[in-house]
Amino acid sequence: MNDTLERVAEVIASRKGGDPDKSYVARLFHKGDDAICKKIGEEATEVVLAAKDIRIGGADNLRQKLVCETADLWFHCMVLLAHHDLSPNEVLAELARREGLSGLAEKAQRSTRGEHAD
Amino acid sequence: MNDTLERVAEVIASRKGGDPDKSYVARLFHKGDDAICKKIGEEATEVVLAAKDIRIGGADNLRQKLVCETADLWFHCMVLLAHHDLSPNEVLAELARREGLSGLAEKAQRSTRGEHAD
Amino acid sequence: MNDTLERVAEVIASRKGGDPDKSYVARLFHKGDDAICKKIGEEATEVVLAAKDIRIGGADNLRQKLVCETADLWFHCMVLLAHHDLSPNEVLAELARREGLSGLAEKAQRSTRGEHAD
Amino acid sequence: MNDTLERVAEVIASRKGGDPDKSYVARLFHKGDDAICKKIGEEATEVVLAAKDIRIGGADNLRQKLVCETADLWFHCMVLLAHHDLSPNEVLAELARREGLSGLAEKAQRSTRGEHAD
Repeated sequence: MNDTLERVAEVIASRKGGDPDKSYVARLFHKGDDAICKKIGEEATEVVLAAKDIRIGGADNLRQKLVCETADLWFHCMVLLAHHDLSPNEVLAELARREGLSGLAEKAQRSTRGEHAD
Repeated sequence: MNDTLERVAEVIASRKGGDPDKSYVARLFHKGDDAICKKIGEEATEVVLAAKDIRIGGADNLRQKLVCETADLWFHCMVLLAHHDLSPNEVLAELARREGLSGLAEKAQRSTRGEHAD
Repeated sequence: MNDTLERVAEVIASRKGGDPDKSYVARLFHKGDDAICKKIGEEATEVVLAAKDIRIGGADNLRQKLVCETADLWFHCMVLLAHHDLSPNEVLAELARREGLSGLAEKAQRSTRGEHAD
Repeated sequence: MNDTLERVAEVIASRKGGDPDKSYVARLFHKGDDAICKKIGEEATEVVLAAKDIRIGGADNLRQKLVCETADLWFHCMVLLAHHDLSPNEVLAELARREGLSGLAEKAQRSTRGEHAD
């Protein structure tokens, strides 16, 4: 599990300056931050629609749909972060800090600074 | 770093059925999924506003603002997931699957099923 | 000015059941209310982006951009209303009612019921 | 019906610089455009939720709920327009122009320029 966000963020960052015709993420970077922001508005709406569909329906694949739409939303958030040279680790550090997960917060910050978080 | 989302998700889940007067998250659960969805629409807008502010300004604290708003958005997504008995691990597994991070995907899925991911 | 919304609503309603290949609105109706809702989330984000651009820039065409994005948003709201056999007149009646524009509210309601509003 | 938007816009504009403690709209103006934009993101989400509720339920008051949420959204759009010294007439002119409602578009533009639209 652990390093998934970090790994995905690396893949995203590697698309910066890439060929817009060959990669969806390179295309988003090329279009600029407004295009990325639009996707965030769009994906947030899809999360909301998926959540309501669970109440309408209840079938198992509807819950998986919510997982997929949340993944879409988080992914585009990571593209926006990368556009501003930020990493999901900084988001995790902020979450840890708020929740008073103090040991975790410390580790997260170290990891953000490129140190090993054990 | 690693287990931050999992730890935050545990804190969130522990608020289910809690006293709405004592905890913000318990209050959100109590109000129901529409209230949670509204927060997601709201927080997504705040992410967009924060991203635009970076272009307007450029000061360091504006980038931190984007980190904080993204943390808010992800946090409320986790509340929505918890409302439907879903965990952020499932979102990470979906992200790993898409990115073809195959080893990671496998681990993530195991971890979702409660097994140890080493 | 006056009847613009009503006239636009008529054009929209006339697209119901139309050929999805020939009309954008017919295509939206064909796709269903989720597709229309997604557009509303998207267009709301574009309104927000346009508003922030005015603060960044200030040029005259940026204000016109906000007008255009608001028109997009209202247009898609009218498609959603039409999907549920509702008309913008009902929105106007609600706005008039709230603002205590009592004479206007009464007229609006009459007009919604198909009577002549003079 | 006709002049509802114009009348509501006048009420909104009259709140500019008003006492934030006495009027909701004066308070929004006082907080600035970010606060107004947040409301637009929030109200757009509520429109989407109301639309989905119609599919879940179907009762008559659910359709009225959609009308009310759309009124909320349009109202806050008008506050944003007013913040930038724009009027809903300009939105209507743009809608008329697109729909090729040529006579109407011409009238709307005249009205926007302060001339009488008969």
